[in-house]
Amino acid sequence: MRIDIITVLPEIIEGALHSSILRRAQEKGIVELELHNLRDYSMDKHKRVDDYPFGGEAGMVMQIEPIDRVISHLKAQRPYDEVIFTSPDGEQFKQKTANELSLLNNLIILCGHYKGVDYRVREHLITREISIGDFVLTGGELAAAMIADAVVRVIPGAIGDEQSALSDSFQDGVLAPPVYTRPAEYKGWKVPEVLLSGHEKKIDEWRNEQAIERTKRLRPDLIKGF
Amino acid sequence: MRIDIITVLPEIIEGALHSSILRRAQEKGIVELELHNLRDYSMDKHKRVDDYPFGGEAGMVMQIEPIDRVISHLKAQRPYDEVIFTSPDGEQFKQKTANELSLLNNLIILCGHYKGVDYRVREHLITREISIGDFVLTGGELAAAMIADAVVRVIPGAIGDEQSALSDSFQDGVLAPPVYTRPAEYKGWKVPEVLLSGHEKKIDEWRNEQAIERTKRLRPDLIKGF
Repeated sequence: MRIDIITVLPEIIEGALHSSILRRAQEKGIVELELHNLRDYSMDKHKRVDDYPFGGEAGMVMQIEPIDRVISHLKAQRPYDEVIFTSPDGEQFKQKTANELSLLNNLIILCGHYKGVDYRVREHLITREISIGDFVLTGGELAAAMIADAVVRVIPGAIGDEQSALSDSFQDGVLAPPVYTRPAEYKGWKVPEVLLSGHEKKIDEWRNEQAIERTKRLRPDLIKGF
Repeated sequence: MRIDIITVLPEIIEGALHSSILRRAQEKGIVELELHNLRDYSMDKHKRVDDYPFGGEAGMVMQIEPIDRVISHLKAQRPYDEVIFTSPDGEQFKQKTANELSLLNNLIILCGHYKGVDYRVREHLITREISIGDFVLTGGELAAAMIADAVVRVIPGAIGDEQSALSDSFQDGVLAPPVYTRPAEYKGWKVPEVLLSGHEKKIDEWRNEQAIERTKRLRPDLIKGF
């Protein structure tokens, strides 16, 4: 899989793309992640990629031309399955979206910045708009890194222990049960005895009960069917 | 305001905390952002901060002791309003949460990693659990950076043009209207004429209409009252 991220501020997410699971997935050849600095596609001698909005609003708007140039440059090299724009009014990103995207070959993610992008970009160049949540960020960079992380970690081989990904929250529609590790007692706070019992069946039962109890209490919307 | 972020992988978000708005807000003295490497609080000679889960599940669990040590160290220096843990089963982070948190003085954000943290941390040391969305990430670092970004950018003075923050999506309960910038025509794609008209009142009307139309179409849940 290949993910190309277009941004005016690559330094925000360079670290994220080269650490932990994303670094290892690249080293293993499971994914190629490329950052593109939009300024490299500016026609302006000052490398500007934004301008004042028509109609006199506050804030700056990212221009269509450099964005069209970088996307065209990429598309000339390989076909892309989606050109994603991260925007608070896009479809809500969920685990299902990550699972779906992980099956694709080539993705472009355009990070919005400033007041937004010229709307013609969204009308003509973008194929899918994704929102991380109902809040506003300075730019789409962190959202793009999150999408890359969530997508790559479900590709088989990306994380060491695949059992671990399968028992994550959401993969089976419920929240994960509590986990504990050494010491068994800390400042008088104890690990539930069943986990120390060695009784595999009882431990499984306890975990299922906890997962369902926690989901019912914290996220009843996830298990309306129960 | 001060935000202390505790993580096992500071390199994931160092760039994010030192770029763009977050960098400028720190330079202006509006916010102090401190990253703490959990490994510095390990008692282990190999700087380990995780261990196998009790009960034999896959994955590794972050231990309570180093986390307790770093939080105690911070709390000895100043009072904290919240000790936040980023977790997919926490309360959903929304613009309202960012606005609320921006009024506080001192926050700690603990980033989960690996399979999770020892549940006793969540029971005894954490005051608020926040989820960015219904998906699983490799760690809570990107979520913590997002929270910091969303919180800091609403502090007065953090972004240059406060009008711009006020007209963002969600601040008034509707999505932002489309924005456009030069050129007025690109590859035959034109900017709506009203925006070029200079008619301030018509432009305002158009923007309101667009904001409401887009919200009704894309996010009817935001304006049930209309």
